Amino acid sequence: MTVHERVDVLVVEDNDSERGSIVETLQSSIHHGNIVAVNDGPEALDFLFSRGNWTDRLGEESPRLVLLDLEMPGEDGFSVLGQIRSLEASEDSLDLIPVVIFTSSHQSDDVRKSYRCGANSYIIKPLSFPDFQAVVETVGQYWITHNRGAN
Amino acid sequence: MTVHERVDVLVVEDNDSERGSIVETLQSSIHHGNIVAVNDGPEALDFLFSRGNWTDRLGEESPRLVLLDLEMPGEDGFSVLGQIRSLEASEDSLDLIPVVIFTSSHQSDDVRKSYRCGANSYIIKPLSFPDFQAVVETVGQYWITHNRGAN
Repeated sequence: MTVHERVDVLVVEDNDSERGSIVETLQSSIHHGNIVAVNDGPEALDFLFSRGNWTDRLGEESPRLVLLDLEMPGEDGFSVLGQIRSLEASEDSLDLIPVVIFTSSHQSDDVRKSYRCGANSYIIKPLSFPDFQAVVETVGQYWITHNRGAN
Repeated sequence: MTVHERVDVLVVEDNDSERGSIVETLQSSIHHGNIVAVNDGPEALDFLFSRGNWTDRLGEESPRLVLLDLEMPGEDGFSVLGQIRSLEASEDSLDLIPVVIFTSSHQSDDVRKSYRCGANSYIIKPLSFPDFQAVVETVGQYWITHNRGAN
């Protein structure tokens, strides 16, 4: 990855094995997919806001999609989402970046809270590995190939 | 359609030929798809809010998806979307219903305004008929088969 190549998907997932599968699947299903993965909420926010380890991203375009786990130690998905959506409107429209929740939670309260916090979509992680891969592929293709983002 | 069968997609589109194609494509791509189409914003709101011609829908579940054109005479897509998102939070979470903008507008202002009004996704209508059908099929399958709605 060069610093000038736009990131397609920022994957935020604390489970190492799931994070690996998601990245691998997205890389093979999105043409020339440029995927960045982080394992917690604070690192995700540092990436998006060009802070901490990611200050060299200042001025770079934001990713086309954030694929966000809900349950994570430290700062959960709701908190990350809330901080993105409460940004001031700016030229790069980072506050409007598409965020898809990708979680194992079937709880209606989590679904409602996600949408209320500003999630664009809520996808439940399938239990079987082939289904998991197929859903990740579908999500990547929908949001990268078909959806028009605000930036 | 019986009154108790849940509506999968409410299509809001003023162009007769496009509305026909969308409904036909959705019906064949969603298994047992139950599609309702209306041709303007006021009728869409009457349907969702069980008013006017749709008072017999009172107590029925809201659709799983609203596929919403932007440019329509009378009440445009932004106005319809704004009225949905400004509803009071209720048990059926109608205020959180997934809304996908489906429009021929490539204008960045329209994209940003759509997300700012609370659109979940923004899809540009392809010019060629086969591409148009393929995109409608993708949108239907993503939101009906994969996405978990709040209600």
